[in-house]
Amino acid sequence: MKTARLHAPRDLRITDEPVPSPGEGEVLLKIGAVGVCASDVHYYEEGAIGDVVIEEPLVLGHEAGAEVEALGPGVTSLQPGDKVAIEPGKHCGKCEICARGLVNLCPAVKFFGTPPTDGALREFITWPADLCIPIPDSMTVVEAAMTEPMAVGIYAVDLANMKGGETVAVLGAGAIGLSVLQAARVAGASKIWVVDPIEVRARMAAKMGAGRALTGDPTQIAEDIWAETGKAGVQIVFECAGTNDAVRQAVRMATYDGQVVAVGIPYPDEVSFPASTARRKNLTVRFVRRSRHAVQRAIDWAASGQIDLKSYATHQFPLERASEAIELARDRRDGVLRSVIEVG
Amino acid sequence: MKTARLHAPRDLRITDEPVPSPGEGEVLLKIGAVGVCASDVHYYEEGAIGDVVIEEPLVLGHEAGAEVEALGPGVTSLQPGDKVAIEPGKHCGKCEICARGLVNLCPAVKFFGTPPTDGALREFITWPADLCIPIPDSMTVVEAAMTEPMAVGIYAVDLANMKGGETVAVLGAGAIGLSVLQAARVAGASKIWVVDPIEVRARMAAKMGAGRALTGDPTQIAEDIWAETGKAGVQIVFECAGTNDAVRQAVRMATYDGQVVAVGIPYPDEVSFPASTARRKNLTVRFVRRSRHAVQRAIDWAASGQIDLKSYATHQFPLERASEAIELARDRRDGVLRSVIEVG
Amino acid sequence: MKTARLHAPRDLRITDEPVPSPGEGEVLLKIGAVGVCASDVHYYEEGAIGDVVIEEPLVLGHEAGAEVEALGPGVTSLQPGDKVAIEPGKHCGKCEICARGLVNLCPAVKFFGTPPTDGALREFITWPADLCIPIPDSMTVVEAAMTEPMAVGIYAVDLANMKGGETVAVLGAGAIGLSVLQAARVAGASKIWVVDPIEVRARMAAKMGAGRALTGDPTQIAEDIWAETGKAGVQIVFECAGTNDAVRQAVRMATYDGQVVAVGIPYPDEVSFPASTARRKNLTVRFVRRSRHAVQRAIDWAASGQIDLKSYATHQFPLERASEAIELARDRRDGVLRSVIEVG
Amino acid sequence: MKTARLHAPRDLRITDEPVPSPGEGEVLLKIGAVGVCASDVHYYEEGAIGDVVIEEPLVLGHEAGAEVEALGPGVTSLQPGDKVAIEPGKHCGKCEICARGLVNLCPAVKFFGTPPTDGALREFITWPADLCIPIPDSMTVVEAAMTEPMAVGIYAVDLANMKGGETVAVLGAGAIGLSVLQAARVAGASKIWVVDPIEVRARMAAKMGAGRALTGDPTQIAEDIWAETGKAGVQIVFECAGTNDAVRQAVRMATYDGQVVAVGIPYPDEVSFPASTARRKNLTVRFVRRSRHAVQRAIDWAASGQIDLKSYATHQFPLERASEAIELARDRRDGVLRSVIEVG
Repeated sequence: MKTARLHAPRDLRITDEPVPSPGEGEVLLKIGAVGVCASDVHYYEEGAIGDVVIEEPLVLGHEAGAEVEALGPGVTSLQPGDKVAIEPGKHCGKCEICARGLVNLCPAVKFFGTPPTDGALREFITWPADLCIPIPDSMTVVEAAMTEPMAVGIYAVDLANMKGGETVAVLGAGAIGLSVLQAARVAGASKIWVVDPIEVRARMAAKMGAGRALTGDPTQIAEDIWAETGKAGVQIVFECAGTNDAVRQAVRMATYDGQVVAVGIPYPDEVSFPASTARRKNLTVRFVRRSRHAVQRAIDWAASGQIDLKSYATHQFPLERASEAIELARDRRDGVLRSVIEVG
Repeated sequence: MKTARLHAPRDLRITDEPVPSPGEGEVLLKIGAVGVCASDVHYYEEGAIGDVVIEEPLVLGHEAGAEVEALGPGVTSLQPGDKVAIEPGKHCGKCEICARGLVNLCPAVKFFGTPPTDGALREFITWPADLCIPIPDSMTVVEAAMTEPMAVGIYAVDLANMKGGETVAVLGAGAIGLSVLQAARVAGASKIWVVDPIEVRARMAAKMGAGRALTGDPTQIAEDIWAETGKAGVQIVFECAGTNDAVRQAVRMATYDGQVVAVGIPYPDEVSFPASTARRKNLTVRFVRRSRHAVQRAIDWAASGQIDLKSYATHQFPLERASEAIELARDRRDGVLRSVIEVG
Repeated sequence: MKTARLHAPRDLRITDEPVPSPGEGEVLLKIGAVGVCASDVHYYEEGAIGDVVIEEPLVLGHEAGAEVEALGPGVTSLQPGDKVAIEPGKHCGKCEICARGLVNLCPAVKFFGTPPTDGALREFITWPADLCIPIPDSMTVVEAAMTEPMAVGIYAVDLANMKGGETVAVLGAGAIGLSVLQAARVAGASKIWVVDPIEVRARMAAKMGAGRALTGDPTQIAEDIWAETGKAGVQIVFECAGTNDAVRQAVRMATYDGQVVAVGIPYPDEVSFPASTARRKNLTVRFVRRSRHAVQRAIDWAASGQIDLKSYATHQFPLERASEAIELARDRRDGVLRSVIEVG
Repeated sequence: MKTARLHAPRDLRITDEPVPSPGEGEVLLKIGAVGVCASDVHYYEEGAIGDVVIEEPLVLGHEAGAEVEALGPGVTSLQPGDKVAIEPGKHCGKCEICARGLVNLCPAVKFFGTPPTDGALREFITWPADLCIPIPDSMTVVEAAMTEPMAVGIYAVDLANMKGGETVAVLGAGAIGLSVLQAARVAGASKIWVVDPIEVRARMAAKMGAGRALTGDPTQIAEDIWAETGKAGVQIVFECAGTNDAVRQAVRMATYDGQVVAVGIPYPDEVSFPASTARRKNLTVRFVRRSRHAVQRAIDWAASGQIDLKSYATHQFPLERASEAIELARDRRDGVLRSVIEVG
């Protein structure tokens, strides 16, 4: 089968590899579509995120929609031909952290496209059946792939314990920021500011329900929002831009007793902000690790039309052009939200 | 009356000022003892904390124990001669934040010794009766003064929603760190590491109930604690050292789904740490603003012997030597925990 | 001015009383519309709710919309002619409970139409300006009155800490049940069952966003919902029918680790249910007391069209026919949701 | 091996049964001691609790301490000769509820001594190794057995989210009530009232740290505590008496915004209380199902001397006299707290 494997930074090779066989409780999946996430870009460009370094050639990709090709022994919950969204992390199920239900934090998790676990940029993959969640016929495998970033947005809103009527700002309107926006809107945020200097992204945010979608200088916008709220600030600010500047803007515009939720993956890997501001506001700063217990809601809300996952997939590439897809995501050119690699 | 007023950095003058008169609902307090806090040191040395700058000569001091000297009109809850602990912040009681009970975050709060509100380093002061909390005869005005840092420790533990049996580390064992330690011990922390390179502070921590009181290189100790817990980490790490290094150590040693609670006032006024570590652990970082609803517990626990406030007051000075008291606190010399200025 | 005063059960008299004068910080309000709540019916019929008994002739009514007629000394936040919604409870602002922000639980609260505090069924009333919340021109005083039951619904959802995507059932679709329904819908409940044997109420629930609006035998429906969820149950069940049968149905259909939120005022005043069911599900049963910090959201959501308050007011009566209005509410006849008494 | 099997209410027979063999991941345990819980009494007397009915002869007993006799395949975490406390419930590990970490609520749980799962009243048993938690040499198997009721107490305090300094009342001072008392004391409850009409139980409560241990008429005591708190009430009231009267007293003495935590197993199986009281106080009533994630803390606290588990075991019986042990527990005679059946 065709496989896109990263041998070194910017050295992604399409090779031929054997099709795996599903083990006990597993299914063989025929991958349909894979979205390119900021973490894929980090690995592609730098070969590492923080101190997690690619040491052996690695298959990237963790936002995947697929079709069930074959069942391993003991699988009864799925049938060949089922289209599925995929939980990209396989937790150990035995540690103290799994016992408490915090499966996304399992230290022994195997996560698609994170060294040393190969990801989804290949034609077939085996995966536990109970991490494959059926989607209705009305949804496509591309939308199934997009449930992964959407789940991150849902989880970020979960973490913030958001209540209906709270005010929200989202800094950065890529696929993650838009997912946070949509999750916050469904959960009843009363007013949602979205900030992104890229105009097409701000327009998409407006279309997806942002009360205010702002382009322009983000630092100035943070001051403006602070002023607009009468120096009361915003109750929950989600950092989805992946820059430290955005973290600082979030601290600036958050309210007293407010929350800053860091969803982005900043580069360089360091956050800094004024302690006195955070202290005087008694802020809570939350860091978001992937997601848990959220994919099903992403499917339900997409199926019911409460959220729009189709619009994320602005560009399609065949597997052979995976490098191009990643580089487009890196460059944020041409109005890209998600580069989607169509594998099947 | 004698008043210690700061005219410029390191320029504290003892002057004579008129005794104020208590208004409706207020009492006239005869100040007995005032502790010197890190924030007093910041103002004394730099004339500012972050962007809060002293613009007019200011009386410092917000950790005060006093005796009621006279009652203003309408006061029935106190009697002359009552010894009291003091809530040093007078919230407006009218804003949205006060309505939600978050009185320590009221943007219009008047807080002792924070510009432009004069503090307690003077013989007499007027203050609302309902912010003066009687202490039993068995307690001294020095202990009453020490309920203020203790309340900060209690509030920090409140914020963390600590449950009995959780593991805790406290970085820095000055009066704030020891207050956090004591509050966490009363609330049933199962094991408490305390780290302070100053040996006498570590010894005091051991005396006050730290399971492990460690001196030595804090960065190495953070690694050691991480290893000692089998890379599981500590559930709640309280930063009480007032340095960014301590914030980084806290992030390093915290557990998955753990909390870092920043209680110290760092100098310089900036926190920074690796985003990837915080994200992979799904950390919550809380910034603590003073305290609320905690002084009564500090009094009760001191009265019942559950906590020790007496030992904080390692050094006493008369009001005339207030500068010396502040400089001793600044230099952390001679085993000082709290320099206490005896006013009365 | 004309006043409707209850002298004994079912003995409501229209009398002439002097117009009051607004004190410091108060406004004189010209009452426009008053809704009839189940508690008004209880007082009208029985002269008591539980052990709170009417001892002196009392003016009922706490769901009121009004217009500012005149300002008392010191009021700057309002102008004559402003239309306002009204927080019907005046908390003391001095007790420990108010200090914690739990203003709806203040033991010294004076609440419209609850003995011994006269309510809104009269032409004019004085009330603190900061408990009168302006509504936009696009809203009517009838809608302003309806923000009161809506606030109860919002508060019930607040108490349950509902998150987007949770499943909800609402038992009873009077004005309170519909308010819970609308609040839960805005806050992103993923599926909402509403049960009411009165068909017109179920139809209204469907119109207001219930996923399933069911009439028929409620006990059977509880079994059916339990079965329909695959014996997983519903995450949050709101009891809004004011009967103990509904409490039992709620316990029956709630999920493991689920919540039952009792919003209704049951008659007789006693709840009972099987302990073993509640225990095996580890249920949390919450009892709702009026509301706090919710009226502004009711106004905002009505103004933005997210909720419908107009449809509550199914029947109008002049003040002279207040008894009739209350009796219609009591009898739940003629498709009544809220009897509204138009005072002005 | 000798086995005590209940064939019908009050018909407990000692029979000879084959020793089981441990499967993959299991150990063979030699039972040392088994405590008699109220639920064992219910099954013994009535053959049922609520609608869970014994249909086949059943081995009772779920509070067990044991020694590892032999290891099944794949077990590396234990050694023969290890003394262990036992988690008596084996959750499925596959359902949605287990995935969320709520293992005590798994609908497919197999729980010792609950139909149709045999319990610990026999010489040997097989059980998953990861549900057997080693105790230190300083502890006995009797104390190991007592970690089970202690874990219920810890979990009840967990559920209440108790903070240091909160006021607590415990109604009923059997082993469960004393466990709640001890857990609340460790977690820093500021004042603990314990009520039990049996004098020896009240004395034990005083010894274990109750601030006030009261005998006498519980209804009157509830009134007295309400008065003693100045009608402010108690923040968390734990019902551990297993009677509906105690539930009513708990509702009576709880504070505004307070909690009632129902830990007992009432007979008859129905709770009832005045809705208006619960509503006016905005009470939260929590029902406790066994425990989760708590046995390790019970062991740690017993090992460190923070709690006393030895004193629970007031009476010992050999396996042959198991009926007698259960009947003593039923009759609450002779100062019994826990009847302990020494099996080994």
